[in-house]
Amino acid sequence: MEQPILNRGRVSDPRPVLPSGFKASAIHAGIRAKKSKLDMGLVVAPEALPAAAIYTTNKLVGAHVTVCRESLAKSGGRVRALLVNSGNANCSTGEAGLEDARHVQRAVAELVGCPPEQVLFMSTGVIGARLPMEKLLAALPNLVGTASERGLGDFATAIMTTDLVPKVRTVAVEDKSGAPFRVTGVAKGSGMIHPNMATMLGYLFTDATLPREPHAFLRQVADRSFHRLTVDGDTSPNDTVLLWSSRTSATPTSEELLARTVTDVAQELCRTIAADGEGATRLLTVQVLGAPDEAAATQVARTIATSPLTKTAVHGRDPNWGRILAAAGRSGIDFDPAKARVWIGDADVYSDGKPHPENEKEAHLHLLNNHEVVLGVDLAAGSAQAEAWTCDFSNDYVRINADYRS
Amino acid sequence: MEQPILNRGRVSDPRPVLPSGFKASAIHAGIRAKKSKLDMGLVVAPEALPAAAIYTTNKLVGAHVTVCRESLAKSGGRVRALLVNSGNANCSTGEAGLEDARHVQRAVAELVGCPPEQVLFMSTGVIGARLPMEKLLAALPNLVGTASERGLGDFATAIMTTDLVPKVRTVAVEDKSGAPFRVTGVAKGSGMIHPNMATMLGYLFTDATLPREPHAFLRQVADRSFHRLTVDGDTSPNDTVLLWSSRTSATPTSEELLARTVTDVAQELCRTIAADGEGATRLLTVQVLGAPDEAAATQVARTIATSPLTKTAVHGRDPNWGRILAAAGRSGIDFDPAKARVWIGDADVYSDGKPHPENEKEAHLHLLNNHEVVLGVDLAAGSAQAEAWTCDFSNDYVRINADYRS
Repeated sequence: MEQPILNRGRVSDPRPVLPSGFKASAIHAGIRAKKSKLDMGLVVAPEALPAAAIYTTNKLVGAHVTVCRESLAKSGGRVRALLVNSGNANCSTGEAGLEDARHVQRAVAELVGCPPEQVLFMSTGVIGARLPMEKLLAALPNLVGTASERGLGDFATAIMTTDLVPKVRTVAVEDKSGAPFRVTGVAKGSGMIHPNMATMLGYLFTDATLPREPHAFLRQVADRSFHRLTVDGDTSPNDTVLLWSSRTSATPTSEELLARTVTDVAQELCRTIAADGEGATRLLTVQVLGAPDEAAATQVARTIATSPLTKTAVHGRDPNWGRILAAAGRSGIDFDPAKARVWIGDADVYSDGKPHPENEKEAHLHLLNNHEVVLGVDLAAGSAQAEAWTCDFSNDYVRINADYRS
Repeated sequence: MEQPILNRGRVSDPRPVLPSGFKASAIHAGIRAKKSKLDMGLVVAPEALPAAAIYTTNKLVGAHVTVCRESLAKSGGRVRALLVNSGNANCSTGEAGLEDARHVQRAVAELVGCPPEQVLFMSTGVIGARLPMEKLLAALPNLVGTASERGLGDFATAIMTTDLVPKVRTVAVEDKSGAPFRVTGVAKGSGMIHPNMATMLGYLFTDATLPREPHAFLRQVADRSFHRLTVDGDTSPNDTVLLWSSRTSATPTSEELLARTVTDVAQELCRTIAADGEGATRLLTVQVLGAPDEAAATQVARTIATSPLTKTAVHGRDPNWGRILAAAGRSGIDFDPAKARVWIGDADVYSDGKPHPENEKEAHLHLLNNHEVVLGVDLAAGSAQAEAWTCDFSNDYVRINADYRS
């Protein structure tokens, strides 16, 4: 049962680079105390180019969500520059925080030479504190001046908060019927973290032509990737995913091929984020087969991936089919548990209404010996399938999140 | 802000006893290995009397859920005897498990002298294993023969699995316009536990006349009590709540007074269950005010009470208003975070769109110095309110639930 759903062979995975047209840079502006930590990153395009964004569904939103929404509406979905800072989320900062965000946006626009609404400025870090405006504005000229084709790695590092590794993926596609294109994804983790909560930021850059409805396209991609990722079930006020095309290829791109490629990159980012979850020792992929439709499959996969009992069982290397089946059972999706099948790795641990204790040793060894573990349920209630990604639930998660903020 | 919602002064709380008419007993049948542990309990009524039950919403259900549903339908909601065993949930045991449940039901009916459908037999404990029928049947005559008015404590102990304390509450009401009556609640905990998952069982006995629609009445009670209780967000396949009246008072009971009293008893059971959650060091009461309606208030309270981030913050005695507000924000209920207020104990930690760091010390001390802690959110979006109960999320929870089953 190793990964029957994803198809990874199709795409190449060269050294991560930006698609043609984009330039990036990063700087230590001093927002974060640690001297060596890059805390502000920039990506610029040669002109205002098509983009779409989706945001957290949380009612509590950071200032950047409000300003980005307004800006993309005003610019007609055209973006010239993206600025991201880490260390401060500019959230729960009221009207003053909105003004700060707009002030920075105007400053970038002036340096780049475009209207303010073509600049997107996003923030991640602690909430409830004002941005250190002086430091931030002082660093901008240098940041804009140093943007280059080779700045991707620094940009990916600058947006990290408590992430242990930068998260970047590039896929180059040879499209026989159209122009070759590249998709590059950059993300930072979604674990809700000390001292408050961490934002999931996802950026999908491409030099392919976007479909006519880029927002609907991005939503479809996110439904199959970022929306299937969970670290602890909580949602940050600043979560944002941006799709942005430098559209320098002459020939139009097959929408279906682009969708598959962007989704693959986004899914790879999700797996990297889950693997880097707080206190995680395992990347857990939850597979659901035999669902009445894809939305139902996703709901079951997400319910299992969010279950603390499933996540602690994986941490204990315990092939606990009962917890998996019970999580599926409370997902709200109709199926008959007597017909369902549950597996861990290659071992069937439950089917035909009864457990298979003889296979539990093999399942235990799968959980014990692999960094990336797989478990799944066949609902026997249709033919749709979905995956979700999460990490195990460890003592370290509790330790990290219980620390008093001082 | 100490408990503004519940009204507890109204009712007396004498030594727990059964309402008049009921008798109870318990025995060590040998289902559980430990010699001294009572593992089977019985409650009998003098005749078949009105009852209603509600069950887990999980698609995976234990055999008793199926058989109890059928029996109550066939008996027209009349119950003569209730048998409960701990140590074995008779779940995922297929057709054979259903036959076992019916076999025991018939044996009790014969001993008590009633049709089988007037006997409810419920199980809790490990899943996937057949009931030890021989031991169970052998213990029945003694169990039925020793039932007495003083058997309540033993019954409450017999249904425990990993609960640390028995959970019993009695409330006696002097109804000036009707007959005095008594409501006695017994429960066992709902933490999903090693080795598989634990059932929440709740029993509400009364000698008051039940309303004409006891099932709807019980559902309303549960909506304000058991449905607002969460230990880890998981739901067991065997969860069951039973309301049963010995109806020996001559005069009818005020439905409103009965509802308030039964709800109070059920809420007290919930608080006891939450306080006894796995690894719990704090009972956490989540209050939500200013919601558009009660269902919305409940949804917000449940979302906060289920949030691992809120529960780990309470464990760390961290007055983390951001996590509370963010949990409310993702609950799906519409409100404006800029108008909301968040408190911990008596300390307001967020209002008017900004945090109050000057009050965090007081909030921290509330979390540090009380076994029962209170936090809340005023959504400023209406006038409805609700509470939910949970416990903090500790390292012990992970340790208990990650242990390999061996």
